[in-house]
Amino acid sequence: MRFDALTPTYLFREMEERAAAYRERHPDAEVLSLGIGDVTRPLAPCVSAAMARAAGEMATAAGFHGYPPAFGYDFLREAIAGAYARRGVTMEADTVYISDGAKTDAALLPRLFDGVTVYLADPCYPVYRDAHLLAGHRICTLDATAENGYLPPPPERGRDAAIVYLTSPGNPIGVAYDRAGLSAWVRYARQSGSLLIFDAAYAAYLPSDLPHSIYEIEGSRTCAVELGSFSKSAGFTGVRCAWSIFPDKVTFGGVQLAPLWRRLKSISSNGVSYPVQCGAAAALTPAGRAATEEHVRYYLENAALLAAALRASGTPFVGGTCSPYLWVTCPRGCTAWETFTRYLNERQLVVTPGGGFGAGGEGYIRLSALGTRDTVRRAAERLCP
Amino acid sequence: MRFDALTPTYLFREMEERAAAYRERHPDAEVLSLGIGDVTRPLAPCVSAAMARAAGEMATAAGFHGYPPAFGYDFLREAIAGAYARRGVTMEADTVYISDGAKTDAALLPRLFDGVTVYLADPCYPVYRDAHLLAGHRICTLDATAENGYLPPPPERGRDAAIVYLTSPGNPIGVAYDRAGLSAWVRYARQSGSLLIFDAAYAAYLPSDLPHSIYEIEGSRTCAVELGSFSKSAGFTGVRCAWSIFPDKVTFGGVQLAPLWRRLKSISSNGVSYPVQCGAAAALTPAGRAATEEHVRYYLENAALLAAALRASGTPFVGGTCSPYLWVTCPRGCTAWETFTRYLNERQLVVTPGGGFGAGGEGYIRLSALGTRDTVRRAAERLCP
Repeated sequence: MRFDALTPTYLFREMEERAAAYRERHPDAEVLSLGIGDVTRPLAPCVSAAMARAAGEMATAAGFHGYPPAFGYDFLREAIAGAYARRGVTMEADTVYISDGAKTDAALLPRLFDGVTVYLADPCYPVYRDAHLLAGHRICTLDATAENGYLPPPPERGRDAAIVYLTSPGNPIGVAYDRAGLSAWVRYARQSGSLLIFDAAYAAYLPSDLPHSIYEIEGSRTCAVELGSFSKSAGFTGVRCAWSIFPDKVTFGGVQLAPLWRRLKSISSNGVSYPVQCGAAAALTPAGRAATEEHVRYYLENAALLAAALRASGTPFVGGTCSPYLWVTCPRGCTAWETFTRYLNERQLVVTPGGGFGAGGEGYIRLSALGTRDTVRRAAERLCP
Repeated sequence: MRFDALTPTYLFREMEERAAAYRERHPDAEVLSLGIGDVTRPLAPCVSAAMARAAGEMATAAGFHGYPPAFGYDFLREAIAGAYARRGVTMEADTVYISDGAKTDAALLPRLFDGVTVYLADPCYPVYRDAHLLAGHRICTLDATAENGYLPPPPERGRDAAIVYLTSPGNPIGVAYDRAGLSAWVRYARQSGSLLIFDAAYAAYLPSDLPHSIYEIEGSRTCAVELGSFSKSAGFTGVRCAWSIFPDKVTFGGVQLAPLWRRLKSISSNGVSYPVQCGAAAALTPAGRAATEEHVRYYLENAALLAAALRASGTPFVGGTCSPYLWVTCPRGCTAWETFTRYLNERQLVVTPGGGFGAGGEGYIRLSALGTRDTVRRAAERLCP
């Protein structure tokens, strides 16, 4: 079975289990988590109200909704197209496909392809790798290192048609491509016949002068698909709503991908809960957008507190300015899991070991600034005792 | 690409498109649908209220919920275990895995296996076939015919270890296995090393003396997994919640399946929306169960109206007594799609062509009784003019 190729346990479950074991041994310790990137700000009132209203409608004969449209309600697809328009990107609503999570889409995407080569930044979000390994695909890594600013450029050799994942701002490394960096990738994809899969799950954290979408780069509409999410912007990790963009002209190996994506999605799920889609649409109204901006500002202030503590303690790191993540160099001679254990034992902090994101993450840990202000403030004190 | 093995369009989308084209040509026609099996009764007030309450909680600091547990909230897993207990089946809550739909689970299941043989009733729910074809598996059909009461027994020859799908009551053919029929399959699975995948999505429509779960059959806990759903019971087609049961002792090819299922689910999604899970749990409270019973009674009364009209017009059919579906023989010499077209043109009724469920469904159409009473009553009049 292809499961043999995978590590036996999913990274965040492993961390949870180790932290739970520590808590059991030290019932009085107050363990704080800077680990899994889960948001903590309450939903915007307008989002919550839209979901509650939709749930109410569903109890009436006139307002009941059965199976949702396979690719999402038009009202939400259009609202997302509207969000692209505000960035100057014209996107037809019917190229927007709603899902219950960017992870769901990332896990489904590899099934579009047979026997392909996949370029992944090392380190990267582990789901990309696991899903392609499960599909039996060949994986090549692009080293994200201090030398390239943790933003791998296109390879100079080996210009075969491949699937390339780009995440900006990155996860686990919270740094972002600028226009020149993404343009180089689009040129590479067009020249090599490669497909870019641009994961914009954290785009809300970017300053407005950096590209939020691959479609802000000329030439990308034939060679790039994109994933977006409400999780880290509107705080939807517990609500579950995301989207993918498949422009009609995107091809790979001479095959138009959008019809295959529609077929695959039609087989794989019956769409997304009506109240959830109503909540997501509310997050894109002016009131919802204001709330999202407030959330993002809050988490970036958290990141600044962590960054200040790391700087004060002389700990090298990157990230935390256009991303809720800080990528921290481990103490000399410590592996990432050893550092995890030291943070847990010595500071009662849960952090994410970088090695869980790929061999290139070894020697680093990731800190998440998505906790509450109180948690982050106290964690920052422990970072700089 | 393995997509070549699939029919180019998903059945219900094809029907929608043909019906839409008819409506466009005949804007004044009142087209009624007995096609896709979508429910129409509003949600129970207690379900709607639980979802609205959960949405409200999410807007508060104390009640916010981030990522749901990967396999579902304990409160829901325990409530589902409780529903099994009411049928006399002891099921540990941690063998229950929550998902956003039985279709999602059915599409994911094939990924547990490499190079297996799959036994499918012909006709059957098309997602089983499509998902296994996409995984490159070998499919053998078990003919569901008038001779075997449309309930295929285990094959007498070829006792290799295989994956076997059983749906009771069936979809598209609304007939159900009795204890003897399911016991024969469990014996077969144990002797051959096969795995049964029991789809109980329509179990709520069964009379209490027929088995609602494969686990009511002795010996099944080592050789069977089960899919259940809130869609057709609590009316959740638009809410999206379902579950799978993977007892710890179930193995296939000597491999314990539950750990693989947990790994696969951990990669494939980030769990189910908190308000949705609260709604599902409410559907299993006494008030929720009473509402579900009322829904089921209503749809079975609809089915009785359709059955009476078919009988009055001398049209042969089966089903409609322990299932919301009626399986109707096409007029002599007519294919299923031809009959679809005749029903649409002559009676302005959308029905589901049986051939869409497999070659063995050719010569039949499926009628759904899940519409509103008003729609079904008027459709029944058109069935028996």
